[in-house]
Amino acid sequence: MANRLVVIGGDAGGMAAISQVRKGPRSHDVVVLERGRHTSYSACGIPYVVGGEVATLEALVARTPQQFRADHGVDVRMGHEAVGIDLDRREIEVHDHARAGRTYRLGFDDLLLGTGGQPVRPPLPGIELPLVHGVQTLDDAAHLLAHAEHSECKDVVIVGGGYIGLEMAEAFTNRGSRVVVVDRFPTPLGGLDPELGALVTAAMRLHGIDCHLGVEVLGFDERAVLTDDGSHAADLVVLGLGVAPRSDLARAAGLRLGPKGSISVNRRQQTSADGIWAAGDCCESFHLVTGEKMHLPLGTVANKQSRVAGINIGGGYATFPGVVGTAITKLCDTEIARTGLSSREAAAAGFEAVASTIEATTAAGYYPGAAPITVRLIVERGRGRILGAQIVGGPGSGKRIDTCALAVTHQMTAEDLVQADLSYAPPFSGVWDPVQVASREALKLL
Amino acid sequence: MANRLVVIGGDAGGMAAISQVRKGPRSHDVVVLERGRHTSYSACGIPYVVGGEVATLEALVARTPQQFRADHGVDVRMGHEAVGIDLDRREIEVHDHARAGRTYRLGFDDLLLGTGGQPVRPPLPGIELPLVHGVQTLDDAAHLLAHAEHSECKDVVIVGGGYIGLEMAEAFTNRGSRVVVVDRFPTPLGGLDPELGALVTAAMRLHGIDCHLGVEVLGFDERAVLTDDGSHAADLVVLGLGVAPRSDLARAAGLRLGPKGSISVNRRQQTSADGIWAAGDCCESFHLVTGEKMHLPLGTVANKQSRVAGINIGGGYATFPGVVGTAITKLCDTEIARTGLSSREAAAAGFEAVASTIEATTAAGYYPGAAPITVRLIVERGRGRILGAQIVGGPGSGKRIDTCALAVTHQMTAEDLVQADLSYAPPFSGVWDPVQVASREALKLL
Repeated sequence: MANRLVVIGGDAGGMAAISQVRKGPRSHDVVVLERGRHTSYSACGIPYVVGGEVATLEALVARTPQQFRADHGVDVRMGHEAVGIDLDRREIEVHDHARAGRTYRLGFDDLLLGTGGQPVRPPLPGIELPLVHGVQTLDDAAHLLAHAEHSECKDVVIVGGGYIGLEMAEAFTNRGSRVVVVDRFPTPLGGLDPELGALVTAAMRLHGIDCHLGVEVLGFDERAVLTDDGSHAADLVVLGLGVAPRSDLARAAGLRLGPKGSISVNRRQQTSADGIWAAGDCCESFHLVTGEKMHLPLGTVANKQSRVAGINIGGGYATFPGVVGTAITKLCDTEIARTGLSSREAAAAGFEAVASTIEATTAAGYYPGAAPITVRLIVERGRGRILGAQIVGGPGSGKRIDTCALAVTHQMTAEDLVQADLSYAPPFSGVWDPVQVASREALKLL
Repeated sequence: MANRLVVIGGDAGGMAAISQVRKGPRSHDVVVLERGRHTSYSACGIPYVVGGEVATLEALVARTPQQFRADHGVDVRMGHEAVGIDLDRREIEVHDHARAGRTYRLGFDDLLLGTGGQPVRPPLPGIELPLVHGVQTLDDAAHLLAHAEHSECKDVVIVGGGYIGLEMAEAFTNRGSRVVVVDRFPTPLGGLDPELGALVTAAMRLHGIDCHLGVEVLGFDERAVLTDDGSHAADLVVLGLGVAPRSDLARAAGLRLGPKGSISVNRRQQTSADGIWAAGDCCESFHLVTGEKMHLPLGTVANKQSRVAGINIGGGYATFPGVVGTAITKLCDTEIARTGLSSREAAAAGFEAVASTIEATTAAGYYPGAAPITVRLIVERGRGRILGAQIVGGPGSGKRIDTCALAVTHQMTAEDLVQADLSYAPPFSGVWDPVQVASREALKLL
């Protein structure tokens, strides 16, 4: 008789594993328990549906339950919520929301926790008011979309100037709303150093977004967000304060937890309990530069961890080496990206580092459409190792962060990047790519 | 008394060294001998001036002789041609073209050969006819520009489907000429495997370029190019057959030569003679994947080699690790890039390799403007090392080659790339970057 794998959670953390499990030598019956109405959707795409660039929410669904059933012979149970894990009996307790009150127990040999994350909701007065929305599920998205398409939704306040905050601010601006962004930090995108954060603030203001930075939110009422710097009228409030791991089940079962309550896993994505695995926004990651565990709820990480979990569950062998915290977004024509450590993060990790910030162009200076690009490199004193990079610039800027991400991951030095045989033609860069210009500048500072 | 550094050649190979020399502990009087009329110009930009995208040839000049004199206190002698090197007496014999017949001798302590390259001109009948042009100097460019702007220049034949050939074909097409490209190989851009070369052929034809591939040129007459597959009317013929090292001076002086007659250098860019250095299109490079010396006449390589030579001449220490043969170009909206070894090159170097070719999109599939991208990875059997990569796709495709170039340079495996923390947001890629999709496909083949 085949082993039974139960997957809790129908999104990337859980589902990306399944095709890997199917390829391995150990055969499994697979049951997926998803409490919601959707599987495998791109939460990262929600701002672009809300903003009207992508026509329908359905476009964000990579694979429906029907497709999983057909392609992988998986028993996908929608509206079924796992409410308890019995480690001794190796059973899950499940609520079937379709038949109210029905609860059943389901045995497992392997269990993959892909329970995901949930938007952080600080315990502020009024946080539970109906105008306050997080951005995570397609149901959240449907609510936001209804607001965006509603002509009475004139004033939108975004709380938090992170990636989601920025993207939702652009989305509602595109819809013609007046948008205010409130953040407790003096520059948006906390992973950027203030020098580059200021460029983002400038781009936001140019795009008509009203930025109130260094401001503390005190609470909400039915028509406004209250801050220590006055109140802002709001027909809608969007929370962009990050995502917390959804690890209640794991905690209740006594599994070891890591940073921010994320589920602790080893290199193979195995939790502290035998045969129980975790991947995605619910679990922790290892940071390759700090050497510390952290919680990094990103779709890329979820997919990689889930792939590794799936290979191992299927009887293969794979390990997840870790992350360097690469992220990218755009605001209108301004592309913004980062990887590795910021100056502040490098100092906190105990590194002594220099930071070089240069301005260049995304194409040869004489080439039409060459856009400005600012690159900041964080480089360790002594050996010159690249610890992090940040980029803000016009079209064509952002994806250059991948070059830096590999440099950070593989412990390259600024000299390594200067010497790297990167591509050049006038429509694509100067003869020294901007990343190399920043590396040369860093060498001068070392 | 300061040492004297003589630099032969006023372009990247020679001039990029000077700012490095100036920073070093050894002080030099610097004399530059440039036989032409320009210093430090972007030969790579010539097609974009000819095509009308860049307004003037002057825009391609990064630094004039006056600027070199003012910024670095360099004695720049324009129209002065070095015609001999006397190793024993450590003197250069110089012709001053401005004063016809004047020849003088100039002593040196250090000598940097940055004599560059010259377009390959095969000894075919009619090759010296005035309608046949190479593309190298700004004087060449001025001739081509005059043709491009001349309404009688209706028929242009490009001989050679390499990077320059492709770029000049686009340039003259943009000017309204009928353009024929003739190449002896069955697909253009010989550094691409045929699968991706075929995509380039398709893009050329879509752009209205008449491609005659697998065809041998037999010669030229005053109105046509003659091939073994018929003749093509020509008001102008552009040679895109590559660049040969200009190493006659070095050869006559008895310096050791390498592949294709390029000047042989060690890791510090020193030639076989003490105190004589070389950099740029005139000299050889070390290929990091084949482990062989090669001739790779590219602006990026010239600048890097010259920087290294300059540091060493200035009394510092630097070595040039080598190249992986990265190149990029575009044809209209199609971006084309390569790095490392092609399948054919890998086999020739003795590698057994698999090749994965995948089609993906430059943004999430649901995102507006997501363009097709094809990525081919060449991966060594056994350890899975990435030996090379090729990319053809829409806007945003090409610069992804830099990620691959670092992977090739630093001997990463396909698994390393799958696990790499590359950036993702819907406007920039799928949750697995196309480069990672190709890596995953390669893992299946290994």
